[in-house]
Formats: sequence, C-alpha cells, structure tokens
Amino acid sequence: MTSDRPIVVLCGGVGAARLLIGMTRVVADEQLIAVVNTGDDMVMHGLHISPDLDTVVYTVSGQVSKERGWGLEGETWQAMEMVGRYGGQDWFALGDRDLGTHLYRTDQLQQGRALSDVTGDIARTWGLGFRVLPATDNPLRTKLTTVDGDELTFQEYFVGRSHDVAVSRIRFEGARAATPAPGVLDAIANAERVIVAPSNPAVSIDPILAIPGIRDALKDRRSSVVAVSPIVAGDALKGPAARLLRELGSEASVAGVAEWYQSIAGTLVIDSADRDRAADIEAVGVKAVTADTIMVDPAASERLAQTLLTVPVGDPMNSTDEPG
Amino acid sequence: MTSDRPIVVLCGGVGAARLLIGMTRVVADEQLIAVVNTGDDMVMHGLHISPDLDTVVYTVSGQVSKERGWGLEGETWQAMEMVGRYGGQDWFALGDRDLGTHLYRTDQLQQGRALSDVTGDIARTWGLGFRVLPATDNPLRTKLTTVDGDELTFQEYFVGRSHDVAVSRIRFEGARAATPAPGVLDAIANAERVIVAPSNPAVSIDPILAIPGIRDALKDRRSSVVAVSPIVAGDALKGPAARLLRELGSEASVAGVAEWYQSIAGTLVIDSADRDRAADIEAVGVKAVTADTIMVDPAASERLAQTLLTVPVGDPMNSTDEPG
Repeated sequence: MTSDRPIVVLCGGVGAARLLIGMTRVVADEQLIAVVNTGDDMVMHGLHISPDLDTVVYTVSGQVSKERGWGLEGETWQAMEMVGRYGGQDWFALGDRDLGTHLYRTDQLQQGRALSDVTGDIARTWGLGFRVLPATDNPLRTKLTTVDGDELTFQEYFVGRSHDVAVSRIRFEGARAATPAPGVLDAIANAERVIVAPSNPAVSIDPILAIPGIRDALKDRRSSVVAVSPIVAGDALKGPAARLLRELGSEASVAGVAEWYQSIAGTLVIDSADRDRAADIEAVGVKAVTADTIMVDPAASERLAQTLLTVPVGDPMNSTDEPG
Repeated sequence: MTSDRPIVVLCGGVGAARLLIGMTRVVADEQLIAVVNTGDDMVMHGLHISPDLDTVVYTVSGQVSKERGWGLEGETWQAMEMVGRYGGQDWFALGDRDLGTHLYRTDQLQQGRALSDVTGDIARTWGLGFRVLPATDNPLRTKLTTVDGDELTFQEYFVGRSHDVAVSRIRFEGARAATPAPGVLDAIANAERVIVAPSNPAVSIDPILAIPGIRDALKDRRSSVVAVSPIVAGDALKGPAARLLRELGSEASVAGVAEWYQSIAGTLVIDSADRDRAADIEAVGVKAVTADTIMVDPAASERLAQTLLTVPVGDPMNSTDEPG
C-alpha cells in the first residue's frame, strides 16, 4: 500500500470485527475507517444499545469474551440477575461492564452529542487507533416480518427467537430520513478501496446501504469495492445469513452473494471451498477471487486482510468509475 | 391498636426507613402504608432513579449496605467503573445490583405503567408486605437555589456538592401539575393516624406536601397527624436538615420543626434531649410528646413506632378535624 487514502470497511458485528483485527495489522490506523451497521441498535430499559459498534470495539481491543464470543471478558451479571428477580425483560443479557458502555452512550446522547462522536470516545477508551463510525447518527431499525406476519426488531429476531423463524420481508425503519454519519461519504469517495466485511448481507450490510447516499457512493466506486462472502460452501459460518438469503429469494451461495452485491462491488472474495463457483460469479459481472476466508485466528485474519488489500482492483470490467 | 384503619407514614429516605422497620413490628402489613418522597427522583444515563423509594425498600428488607448505609449489600461497581473509564458522569454511584432496579423501573415506566404500580412490584420482590406508594406518579423535582444563584437538583446538591453550600430557596418543579398517587388521599382520609417520619422537613417532606391535595388532606386530619422531629438538640442526626432550616429562616430546633409542621400536625414527638423545649412547641399550638427518637437499632425503632401509635391523638386542641 503506497497510497495513504482510506481503507474503508463496511461492518456488521463478529465477522467484521475479526477482519478488522487483521486489518489493523496491515493498515496504518490513520488510514483505516470502519463504517458500522446501526440497524441492530435499540433502546432497552431506557438505554441506547449499539450491538455491532460494541462488538467491533470489544473484539478488536481483545476484550471480547473468548468463552461466549460476545460481551466482555471479566463480565458479571448482577444487574440482569436483579431485573430477572423483578420479572423484568432479561432475555437480552447485558453484563455489568457492558452496561457501563450503554450508560455512558445514553448519557452523552441525551446531552445532545452525536452517536459518531460518542463512538469515537468509546473506541479511543478501548485503545483503538482507527476510526469507528456508525453508518448514521440517526435512528435506524432493522425490522423483520416473519411468515406468520409478526414484525420483529433485529434483536427480537436474533436473540429473542434465536433466528429460528422464517422471514418474509426486511425493512429498515428510519432509513429514508437518515443521513450518513459525518465522514462516511467522504471516506467512501476517497477510499483506496472499500471492503465489505463477511457480515450478513441482509441484516448487517443492507441497513448501511439503505441510508440515502451510501449505495450511490459505493456504485460510483464499484471497481474499488471488494466484498468478502460470508457464505462458505453454501452455509454461513455463524448466524442466519444462508437462511435469510434463501427466504428472501436468493441462492445461499457465493453466487447469491455476488448477485446481492453486484451493483456495488466489482470484486467478491470467496473461500477456496467455493472455487468451483467462480464462473457463476463472473457471470453476473463480478470478479471472483479465491482465498482462505475463514478467520480461525488473528494470523488468518491478517492473511485475509492482506489479500483484500492486494487483489487487483480498478479493473474497468463492469465498473462505472475511473480507476483510482 | 384495635382499629384496622391505615397507619400512614410520610417518608423521606434513611430516617423514614428506620422508622418503618419498627412499624412493621407493631403494625399489620395490611394496615401500614408508606407514602414516599419522589422529589429526589431523577433521570440519569437514561434511567429513572427513585432514591427515597429504593432506600425505603432496601432498608426495610434488611438489604441495605450496613457499611455504607445506602445501596445494597453484596454490591459491585463494574458498570460505574466503566463509566468512569469513559470519562462519563460517575459522581452519583450506582451499584450493579442497584442498576437492576433502575433498569426494571425504567423499562416498566416506558411501557406505560405508573410509578406506583412498579414500586409495588419492587417492594413485593424484596418481601415487603406493606404498601409503599410514591407520593405522586407525576414528575416532581426538588430544586435548590444556592446563595450564588445556581439552581441544583436534589442529588447535585446532596451528593454532587455534599450539601455543603448555602441555599436560599427551594422549589418543587412539577408539583403544581402533579396529583397524589392513587391511594394516597384515601389513605390519609381514612388513616387511624398519619406519622410524619423524622425526615428532612425542607427536602423530604415538603415535596410531598407540595402536591396539590395532600397538604389539605393532612390539615383535615391534623389532630391525627403525629410528626417526629428530625432535629435533636439543635442538630440533625444525619444530613442537612438543621442547616437548611436555618438557611430558610427557621430555627434549627424542635421548635422550628413544630412551626414548620404546625398547620398539618397536631402532635410533635421530640427527643428526650429536647424536653426543655416542650413549652415552645405547645406555644405554636402543637402538642409535644417526649420519647427516645434516636433509632440506634431495630428495637429502638420498634419502641419509637409503639410510642407513635399510642400517643393520644384526636385532641381537639388546635385541630380542625373531628376525633377519629
């Protein structure tokens, strides 16, 4: 990397956080910008909770619980234990340390600060040197309609129903009135390249794309946008990505992902396990690059990050933009 | 006590809670009703906090920290430690277990329930058999103007400034629009007797009296209202009661307290240490009764409670009501 133009990573939660661990090893902090989904955000017990932002910060700082894979190391559960005693809502587990983050965020937001500002404080406190931006400072809420006609918030779906219910429709409440957080559009426009992390296309990346201006900004940079397929060998490593793609009428495969991102990404990085599907990807006008995408440890994340930074981009094939 | 009419106790925090411990030993749960100050309530970090209600519940249930005198036994401070790390507001210490109460209360209020309903849940969860009612379900905020012209909330004054600043004026924001919580006026009207706990007259009891209807209801029952002086030998056992009485132009003495409550209480129970001031109390038309009012242990609380239940009331002297 000789340029000092930004490397922008569009992020959901865990998969994106693992990729960022690798990115921080190969990209200077000043160059790296994470743009994180806020469609999972919610107000619960009066507190503003931003699950994907916190997953990114806690994971990249090495403080995420290794045992649980979410929340913090050294966590205690005294507050939730009390909520449970009262018969209150305790299905969404909030650890005591984690609550400190939500208390701080809520307090700062109520004092009139923007989520992007407060997120900056939180990321710096955890020692992150790169920029972590919410996709928007405005309320954005992913809502999933089940085949039974219930409309669920993301966490009701993901945690409350253990994502074990068929979904017929997803919408992003508030998206139309939202604007990208300060810095997001500039980052995309000036990016050396934009990476779409191996997050859930339907519920982690699509909410970001639903914010007016972001999809168009990515289309303008399409040839410099490199997506990583979260689907490997027809299934998601974690979570309901494969299931949701199918339920929403796509193929749960790297080809389905290529089609999903076709308008914004010139390149899709697929796992070696899917190398036989490369032609299906190129068929929809997306360059296919094969790599080991399963980030079993930080070294694997680093190798994937290095690949993402070095795959040739700017190829005019199917691109609307000029090479950078 | 042969009647089964209510015994109503107007309450602030610690002093009232200690008295209630005694009351529960001599009054049937069905008969006892605590009406608790909510002027100290606040929304902090997005959470609805009711310090006096919680002090009453935690203390009477025996779960208050013996070491600190406030908050819960077995408390941890993980959330606040995090808030502090972020550089957030951590001057008002909220323990992790205590946070569970605020999370539950806030959630239930946001679901549209009344504070009085939610308080009932909380008190029952802690094993309290008697009724604990907030004075009002509406927002009520005690605001103190310092001699420097700053206006402080109660907790900013009490905790933030360690009540070490001269006050020129106290007002109760929201009082005019507030209504007594369901059950409060009936309880007073039907009470066998009403006890005013040895709480701070200016900032614990006055907010209750500022809610339209409550002062008049007490005036109607004046001869059955027995107040306990929080001032003993010219000083408060705890907190800024003496100082505030002086700053607001009263005498910091049992005589000052008698004058303060003259319109609502026919009887004032004073500590044996103040027996020489009885005549000053009777001079403002209030019966003086001497007792040991310092509740060093539950047995002392019980003796005081017994006294409060047995001092003759209904004496028409200076009373506007008929004997019960």
